[in-house]
Amino acid sequence: MEGARDIVELTTDVLDVGAISASVTHPTTGATALFVGTTRDNFEDKEVVRLEYEAYEGMARKQLGALCSELREKWVELHSIAIHHRLGVVAVTQASVVIAISSPHRRDALQAVEHCIDRLKAIAPIWKKEVYSEGEGQWKANKECTWAPTPPQGLSKWTLS
Amino acid sequence: MEGARDIVELTTDVLDVGAISASVTHPTTGATALFVGTTRDNFEDKEVVRLEYEAYEGMARKQLGALCSELREKWVELHSIAIHHRLGVVAVTQASVVIAISSPHRRDALQAVEHCIDRLKAIAPIWKKEVYSEGEGQWKANKECTWAPTPPQGLSKWTLS
Repeated sequence: MEGARDIVELTTDVLDVGAISASVTHPTTGATALFVGTTRDNFEDKEVVRLEYEAYEGMARKQLGALCSELREKWVELHSIAIHHRLGVVAVTQASVVIAISSPHRRDALQAVEHCIDRLKAIAPIWKKEVYSEGEGQWKANKECTWAPTPPQGLSKWTLS
Repeated sequence: MEGARDIVELTTDVLDVGAISASVTHPTTGATALFVGTTRDNFEDKEVVRLEYEAYEGMARKQLGALCSELREKWVELHSIAIHHRLGVVAVTQASVVIAISSPHRRDALQAVEHCIDRLKAIAPIWKKEVYSEGEGQWKANKECTWAPTPPQGLSKWTLS
């Protein structure tokens, strides 16, 4: 499709929702759906100060690239797909993940975004550490993860993002 | 809910997706879902140069406010809701509508955004004129509209947005 792109980015920079939305919009698209995941100030009644993310970067890029292909098989009318995940420290209210998907008509983009964030949580080797206001943080694996990869060396407890 | 807002804006200004996303994000929310409707360069094989929108502004604000209440009844965990619709000329690739909804967890925000754009198309008295590269544009009513309001005086053919 003319001008269609799959964009996968892992970065320690602040994620720019407006720029990411614009990056998938094209003269042939009428709809862009987005999901923005942000750091919450609480988790199971504990006060969260910030999150920290780490990834197996090579594997994460490969799996997110494969996820783009999976989306295109399910929704053939998609135009462009952008998946940006932040690494390192992400303060409360800041975005850790931004997904933007465009299509000529809205149903495809809306459904694909929901599937994309569900699958990202299940497959991407990206871990998060919740840092609480009291006591040590805890690295752990995402409860939605279906394959529980081993955490990077030196980190004992992880959560997949 | 602390800091929760319903924001409804009708404006001739360019819509800022990043600012609208940030306007609904709060320390207690982990998810923001957005829908961005943009002007496409074609409609039924005709080349579209731009769209023009007009609204019964008072009625549109009232109905979009009621739509926010409807969303809150269906998804009680929603935090903030922003519905911005542009009026006047909207060039190809520019946004005519931006919806952003936040919630602690993602499913509520994602489902509410899809319902919101479906309902906006069905109920809001906002018309669009497609201006083609050849010949006159045509004001007309949205094919999804369930109540087909009379167009403003002086405009003969309309489409609800």
